[in-house]
Amino acid sequence: MSSVFGKLLTLTSFGESHGPAVGAVLDGCPPGVAVDAALVQRDLDRRRPGQSAVTSSRREPDSVEIVSGVFEGVTTGAPVAMIVRSLDADPAAYANLKELFRPGHADHAYLAKYGVRDYRGSGRSSGRETVARVAAGAVARALLARAGISVRAGTVQVGSLTADGRDWDVAERNAVRCPDEEAAERMEKAILEAREGGDSLGGVVEILAAGVPAGLGDPVFDKLDATLAHGLLSIGAVKGFEVGDGFASARLHGSEMNDRMSPAGFESNHAGGILGGISTGQPIVLRIAVKPPSSIAKPQTTVDRSGEARDFAVTGRHDPCLCPRVVPVAEAMTCLVLADHWLRQRAVEATRPDPGLTWPPGGRSA
Amino acid sequence: MSSVFGKLLTLTSFGESHGPAVGAVLDGCPPGVAVDAALVQRDLDRRRPGQSAVTSSRREPDSVEIVSGVFEGVTTGAPVAMIVRSLDADPAAYANLKELFRPGHADHAYLAKYGVRDYRGSGRSSGRETVARVAAGAVARALLARAGISVRAGTVQVGSLTADGRDWDVAERNAVRCPDEEAAERMEKAILEAREGGDSLGGVVEILAAGVPAGLGDPVFDKLDATLAHGLLSIGAVKGFEVGDGFASARLHGSEMNDRMSPAGFESNHAGGILGGISTGQPIVLRIAVKPPSSIAKPQTTVDRSGEARDFAVTGRHDPCLCPRVVPVAEAMTCLVLADHWLRQRAVEATRPDPGLTWPPGGRSA
Amino acid sequence: MSSVFGKLLTLTSFGESHGPAVGAVLDGCPPGVAVDAALVQRDLDRRRPGQSAVTSSRREPDSVEIVSGVFEGVTTGAPVAMIVRSLDADPAAYANLKELFRPGHADHAYLAKYGVRDYRGSGRSSGRETVARVAAGAVARALLARAGISVRAGTVQVGSLTADGRDWDVAERNAVRCPDEEAAERMEKAILEAREGGDSLGGVVEILAAGVPAGLGDPVFDKLDATLAHGLLSIGAVKGFEVGDGFASARLHGSEMNDRMSPAGFESNHAGGILGGISTGQPIVLRIAVKPPSSIAKPQTTVDRSGEARDFAVTGRHDPCLCPRVVPVAEAMTCLVLADHWLRQRAVEATRPDPGLTWPPGGRSA
Amino acid sequence: MSSVFGKLLTLTSFGESHGPAVGAVLDGCPPGVAVDAALVQRDLDRRRPGQSAVTSSRREPDSVEIVSGVFEGVTTGAPVAMIVRSLDADPAAYANLKELFRPGHADHAYLAKYGVRDYRGSGRSSGRETVARVAAGAVARALLARAGISVRAGTVQVGSLTADGRDWDVAERNAVRCPDEEAAERMEKAILEAREGGDSLGGVVEILAAGVPAGLGDPVFDKLDATLAHGLLSIGAVKGFEVGDGFASARLHGSEMNDRMSPAGFESNHAGGILGGISTGQPIVLRIAVKPPSSIAKPQTTVDRSGEARDFAVTGRHDPCLCPRVVPVAEAMTCLVLADHWLRQRAVEATRPDPGLTWPPGGRSA
Repeated sequence: MSSVFGKLLTLTSFGESHGPAVGAVLDGCPPGVAVDAALVQRDLDRRRPGQSAVTSSRREPDSVEIVSGVFEGVTTGAPVAMIVRSLDADPAAYANLKELFRPGHADHAYLAKYGVRDYRGSGRSSGRETVARVAAGAVARALLARAGISVRAGTVQVGSLTADGRDWDVAERNAVRCPDEEAAERMEKAILEAREGGDSLGGVVEILAAGVPAGLGDPVFDKLDATLAHGLLSIGAVKGFEVGDGFASARLHGSEMNDRMSPAGFESNHAGGILGGISTGQPIVLRIAVKPPSSIAKPQTTVDRSGEARDFAVTGRHDPCLCPRVVPVAEAMTCLVLADHWLRQRAVEATRPDPGLTWPPGGRSA
Repeated sequence: MSSVFGKLLTLTSFGESHGPAVGAVLDGCPPGVAVDAALVQRDLDRRRPGQSAVTSSRREPDSVEIVSGVFEGVTTGAPVAMIVRSLDADPAAYANLKELFRPGHADHAYLAKYGVRDYRGSGRSSGRETVARVAAGAVARALLARAGISVRAGTVQVGSLTADGRDWDVAERNAVRCPDEEAAERMEKAILEAREGGDSLGGVVEILAAGVPAGLGDPVFDKLDATLAHGLLSIGAVKGFEVGDGFASARLHGSEMNDRMSPAGFESNHAGGILGGISTGQPIVLRIAVKPPSSIAKPQTTVDRSGEARDFAVTGRHDPCLCPRVVPVAEAMTCLVLADHWLRQRAVEATRPDPGLTWPPGGRSA
Repeated sequence: MSSVFGKLLTLTSFGESHGPAVGAVLDGCPPGVAVDAALVQRDLDRRRPGQSAVTSSRREPDSVEIVSGVFEGVTTGAPVAMIVRSLDADPAAYANLKELFRPGHADHAYLAKYGVRDYRGSGRSSGRETVARVAAGAVARALLARAGISVRAGTVQVGSLTADGRDWDVAERNAVRCPDEEAAERMEKAILEAREGGDSLGGVVEILAAGVPAGLGDPVFDKLDATLAHGLLSIGAVKGFEVGDGFASARLHGSEMNDRMSPAGFESNHAGGILGGISTGQPIVLRIAVKPPSSIAKPQTTVDRSGEARDFAVTGRHDPCLCPRVVPVAEAMTCLVLADHWLRQRAVEATRPDPGLTWPPGGRSA
Repeated sequence: MSSVFGKLLTLTSFGESHGPAVGAVLDGCPPGVAVDAALVQRDLDRRRPGQSAVTSSRREPDSVEIVSGVFEGVTTGAPVAMIVRSLDADPAAYANLKELFRPGHADHAYLAKYGVRDYRGSGRSSGRETVARVAAGAVARALLARAGISVRAGTVQVGSLTADGRDWDVAERNAVRCPDEEAAERMEKAILEAREGGDSLGGVVEILAAGVPAGLGDPVFDKLDATLAHGLLSIGAVKGFEVGDGFASARLHGSEMNDRMSPAGFESNHAGGILGGISTGQPIVLRIAVKPPSSIAKPQTTVDRSGEARDFAVTGRHDPCLCPRVVPVAEAMTCLVLADHWLRQRAVEATRPDPGLTWPPGGRSA
């Protein structure tokens, strides 16, 4: 099922939405990184349901237990295994979905693939699986901090409402996780309106990685942006990915797109911090399109396993807009990918001649 | 350098822009697939420079030699190794770039990463590396044909000009590879205008995979769209990726985005043929944003290795818009990813219970 | 730390000897295989300490909890996660070893590698880690049963005592797991004598895989025997590996080694069921050399972290001969490798021409 | 076909025995390593046929062309692609084998696996494939030299003749590559006698890696010895692997096997330089069992594709004992595995606390 991700820093994820537990095993984390349950819990708390009016009301404390890989406060080099027990699982609530294909969900595709289906709350396809990512991402984030790299994300669009500001501290102070206070209010209102109408809303999450030195990422298949796209599109509901100017670059001339270099440094960042798949030393700027949640209260028509038409309305506890909870997951995947590349770059440096770079002033190589 | 791609169907790519040869080794192709040099050459001819007024004038016949893996007209299960000699390499033309960082290129990032740089025409970062992808993609395409899957692509946007039509046969009959004849003419004109002005243009390429059965792709990290994004963003100059409604889905409500199912089948395809990372049986629709080529004749300012300001204008043979030549490369990467997943699905089926699906009429599982 | 093993059937192992739990996540198991906790427990019970006088007296029930991947009695295709809590962990007993390098152990090498060391009972280097392998191996065994493949192992040498018989049912009825009843008694006696003398004994474990069809294994790097050796030598204390005649083949002429083929089938099995890295359809016969346990009661001299000489004698609960408990671990690793290759072969068959083999009578291809 | 080997340093091998060329693509070699064709040729010359009376008389110069990855005398970080054209291929000589299963060869197993078979001189199963390994191994050897690591091998047993001496310089001065001059003569004589009798002989090759610092290799699945075994058993005809005392350790007590540590260092090396899968800083000592070549002139009986009995005698140009030519291949595989682990260890060191080791005097960590 490809529940394993990463080359040197390798995350194995397990658990179903309404099974007894979900968890993560992060192998390849080098020794000596300060990690404890509280550090992991901080990110898990940002992901868990029930945080606000705009998230699912499922009540999960999502308390993490670290069962291996950390000793006397630091990583040992052994796999960091983390388990989160599910306490508010309610598989019975899904019994009526057993024979039904929910619109916008993978129910039919999943059955076509496996021939069996754990119908309890999407089973393995559930967003609950992202607990594993966020837990592992917290460890990757601690590793990146050692390299001076930090990762932030926020909701920059909900429906047709967009954020102008990019104050990342603001993002953590509103329910939508929008880096623009004024836009956040309008977005929250729009989400609540959608929910009241039995509907849901899509949006866009922007991710910013700061402090990334020039030189991360591989030139051919494992370009930094290609692997970031892999990681971010592996999050359910993500339907698009952009780096830098992204789709807007299609409308530009080369003379507009090229980031000029002057003795003082780069003069713009249309590239979003990545050229030829390698980090340039500028901030990395990514955006992902998040589709509106498929689970809506509005009545819909669909079919069952035998192809008969069925009326259907979702009654469970669901998010009216995924962006606020995708934010920590997107950060986690970005941290995992960057940390993997940072470790891979150590091998490149084993015999690397000194780049001898004096430009840009204050810049550094990976 | 991560020049290896794919899990069961594994492409190893080698060669630099102005070295003696580029090539591909495709391991994991199952036996019995009819392949010969002519089949590979057909796709290479669609990629090679000098095809039209809107592509680079470098003269490369790009003749492929298959040196292993094919015997008596079919694949043997052994790695298919293919070599293309470079005949019009002109490394001397790049001597003046040795100490310069070209705007929009990875020159600086590459040096920061490796400490050494093959400055001859971008070396390994060159688009010439995609010869390997197209050659391997042709073999993957032959494999997919056995599964009833076909892959087409075309240029659907150049600058701000967009194509309305989607006639894929038309796409191969114009220089821009646009599936809309009328738009193709306007696009070609715009590209030539940009070139005359010493500039270049970006665009969007759309990829369509038809005949993909329901069930390809893995639910968690190797979602079908995530791995497709990985493959497509590993093509140089690609800055964005969408599946189905992509970024437009951010503006939708769930009730608009959800593809309703009726006894007759899906009623729409906002998902682009993939739900939860698994193919639904509908056509797969992808779009990639291609930035305008960085190499332009217009004078630009930049810096050299020591950080001094330098004036600079490109004099080599370059494409004014990459889309027409990205089309076969995008098809190749899509074929490689789909074929890999199709092979992976064979293992899932080893013990799979019969899905027992009767819906949709005429549908099939992977 | 490379705690991930296998290509399509992928085991992730976690946990330290005296941490709260050890566990396994087995990804890539296809759906529909009948698996439950009892099936896994059966193999775990064969591995656990305290079974007999010739094993460690640590008291661990080693009860397994399956937390994901199994639903309504069968695998779902999702990762099968299994956790075994440690109840008789006694980390305090190891405090005195914190600064000491035990002879024959990886203490010094581990510290040289990681700079930190979980000194509690060898931490991650402990044989307790093999709980994960045996649990996952039980699932792989169930998968192989679907293919008509079975795997048995037994102790065929302890010190200089060798077994003549190969009655695999006998092997499970004696404490040494020797397939020769008479030899078993002598071996048990020798082990107890070694223990009484404060010492330990090495041995040889033989593994037999029956029912393996012709065609498993890959011709070049992932030869069936090469990957089996990888798996079996990854078990601690294993210092050698043989397939078929193994080291004895060095003394033979080609005319003696070659297994003749007659219309009735192979006339001998010097190859041990593998030629050119591919299974021949004959039984696969492997042997591994197991060194005597390093932890002995006899006083030894060694050094501490600062290089000072130290006297030292082991006081913990240790096995005087590892073979009886290596048997289920060796079976597990063999099952994991064979199952992985069996799944990989599904992809080869995707387009494979009919081998059209009528020889040997009753033979079958993978 | 698993023609790709290694995690960070990745070898892709291609080519068949009697196809136009064989070759290697070595990806992941870090930049700045001095490499040229002459350096690679030196090792290829040690492997090529026709060197002496005890090797095959096929006449192949095996001249290597480096087509990418090296620029101005050093590796660039790009994949090092190397091609060796086959000049003395004689596929027609094998036409009579098309329908026959040669004893001791993989002909039947191969056909059972793939359904098609390139019968020209074993196709992909041929020892000629090892050209790729030796070429790549030469680059890995140059990389290891940067780390102070060197690898030597020699024939230490032919039939029942064994070598006492271990003078590695002597090994390169006799046709058998035996590190004991007197034994070399007897071995050569034995091989020639076997050939004259239309037969062949097996043997044992010993590999010594010197200068390996403490700390290479991963504790669980990718133990240094496990991955070395994988690499060495992937060489055709290898039927056994030992590290240190190997199978002899089965007969020892713990008190004999344990290598005592004193303030001056290790007092013995029964472990063969690896404990718990990690290098100890002592020399690494490996042995592999090489079966007698299957291709012998003596008449043998066998069967054809339809299961009919056939008489058969090999007429091609074959080695009467493989050991002399396995020596450079075994060195190459050992270099590839060690170099891969050395690169992997760079990532472990990224955040590793200082091991603070003062023991052994003059020792060093990875």
